[in-house]
Amino acid sequence: MPPFPDLKTIAEGGKRGLSRALALIETHEGATELATLLDAALAQTRAHAAGLTGPPGVGKSTLTNALLRDWRNAKETVGVIAVDPSSRRTGGALLGDRARMATDPEDQGVFVRSMAARDRLGGLSDQTIAASVLMRALFDRVLIESVGIGQSEADISFAVDTVILCVQPGSGDSLQFMKAGVMELPDIVVVTKADMGDAARRAQSEVEGALTLFSREDDWRVPVILASATQGVGLADLRQALADHRAWAARTGALESRRKTQQRAWVDEAIRTRFGTEGLARARTIAATGVGPFHRELKIAQELSRRLG
Amino acid sequence: MPPFPDLKTIAEGGKRGLSRALALIETHEGATELATLLDAALAQTRAHAAGLTGPPGVGKSTLTNALLRDWRNAKETVGVIAVDPSSRRTGGALLGDRARMATDPEDQGVFVRSMAARDRLGGLSDQTIAASVLMRALFDRVLIESVGIGQSEADISFAVDTVILCVQPGSGDSLQFMKAGVMELPDIVVVTKADMGDAARRAQSEVEGALTLFSREDDWRVPVILASATQGVGLADLRQALADHRAWAARTGALESRRKTQQRAWVDEAIRTRFGTEGLARARTIAATGVGPFHRELKIAQELSRRLG
Repeated sequence: MPPFPDLKTIAEGGKRGLSRALALIETHEGATELATLLDAALAQTRAHAAGLTGPPGVGKSTLTNALLRDWRNAKETVGVIAVDPSSRRTGGALLGDRARMATDPEDQGVFVRSMAARDRLGGLSDQTIAASVLMRALFDRVLIESVGIGQSEADISFAVDTVILCVQPGSGDSLQFMKAGVMELPDIVVVTKADMGDAARRAQSEVEGALTLFSREDDWRVPVILASATQGVGLADLRQALADHRAWAARTGALESRRKTQQRAWVDEAIRTRFGTEGLARARTIAATGVGPFHRELKIAQELSRRLG
Repeated sequence: MPPFPDLKTIAEGGKRGLSRALALIETHEGATELATLLDAALAQTRAHAAGLTGPPGVGKSTLTNALLRDWRNAKETVGVIAVDPSSRRTGGALLGDRARMATDPEDQGVFVRSMAARDRLGGLSDQTIAASVLMRALFDRVLIESVGIGQSEADISFAVDTVILCVQPGSGDSLQFMKAGVMELPDIVVVTKADMGDAARRAQSEVEGALTLFSREDDWRVPVILASATQGVGLADLRQALADHRAWAARTGALESRRKTQQRAWVDEAIRTRFGTEGLARARTIAATGVGPFHRELKIAQELSRRLG
């Protein structure tokens, strides 16, 4: 086995180096060396991580492509994770056309990776979390795109700093889900297909109305942006909203507290997946202080596994 | 604590007796007496259990009401479980209007119960499984209605003999999900809002087309029925399709084998929830033969819990 690379080696290896490191995540799950790498990467997080979520067909990929182009024009490096809700029956991806992500293979400043969702729609696997941690240490921006259904600690909102929800004019479903609180509350809402004119503006008002039903625990005001990625409409607004949210989160401490909450949730979710609710309850009593959440998880898992025999 | 009722006592107690028994399911989780009651009920399953699933707003409740009326007119007794995808944030139900289920409270032949979904949309909780087992021993028909998103052993298809998927003309989402195999394959598809004429017939053709993409492991041919519950259209076709599927399943042995698969899945899912994938793996080595799955689950859980300490 080759010596396990450190973050510096991975960074110097460019996209091929990152690809190799992501492969290690798959092959070395549970290895101490991997936990060391991930905890080190976490300590060096620099990317603003955004999550793009919404129902199938709403235009997430088009928006992702447009954001990618803008960011690259501004010389920002970007890592993209497209979460594919795979099917256990067919083994295939939901829409199966990730090739539509049009990036220049020679461009070292952009890296796109498709990853399978966990057991259900939208859920992030431990490997997706790990990949996002690595990428957040290597790029200026990380974008995670996923089908926006699901509600759990494995949700996209537990891996990013800013959640963007895409909804479509005339589609009641997204709104119903949001109204019911089934969907985690987004930080930014984008009404896609702004070229639909009145229908789009009506949808914008509806979303704004729905959002007033909630009292957020903080004072961030969720912007609702009309956008048409094909016509280039609303993209500047979206970039501004992302910058505003990031600045607000840093200023108020929301960024730091959200990230801490997320890291606790990663450990809890990983332990719950492997050892269930009873294992998680026992985990509370296992002292596992370490350099970071990935080492904590490792230590708890080793102890619970030993007990189960 | 009052002595634990047996199935006969519950049956004699009518709807109040059943309500009390369902309360015991909540308060006596993990009790040997409850496992005894449920295994006994399972051995006396008589209802044809159907599951009605589909996206929000497709008209599931209207269809449920129509089926209820028809079945009661035919003097069949009916138990209904409406699975509410609750929100952890709001604590509320998705649409919150289960009161729309219009049944006569004096009618002892129909019993309607709303139950919360498990952690995500559509997932059945252990309590919902237990309630369905009890109701299947007490009624001629059991209908479980749930929002049709999700894909796991906790899915509605793991609690019923016949899965009915409702889709709506002009809505691409359900079809996309179905095409991708994200949704478990239904036994019957109902295209609601048949009063939409051409659009409804087009949707019917689309679904029929989508279904040809799959090779089922059996020779059941999934009927696609146009229905408008408000206009009474298609209900006779749906009742016939239910009867056909039940007769086919009994004749070919599919009914028995599906029920056995379901019972194994209940145990696995309960163990996985409480003890995770590692607990489930260890469970395979725990000999737990008993009168039924609920006792098996109990025995495995006791052993794993003892090991975890």
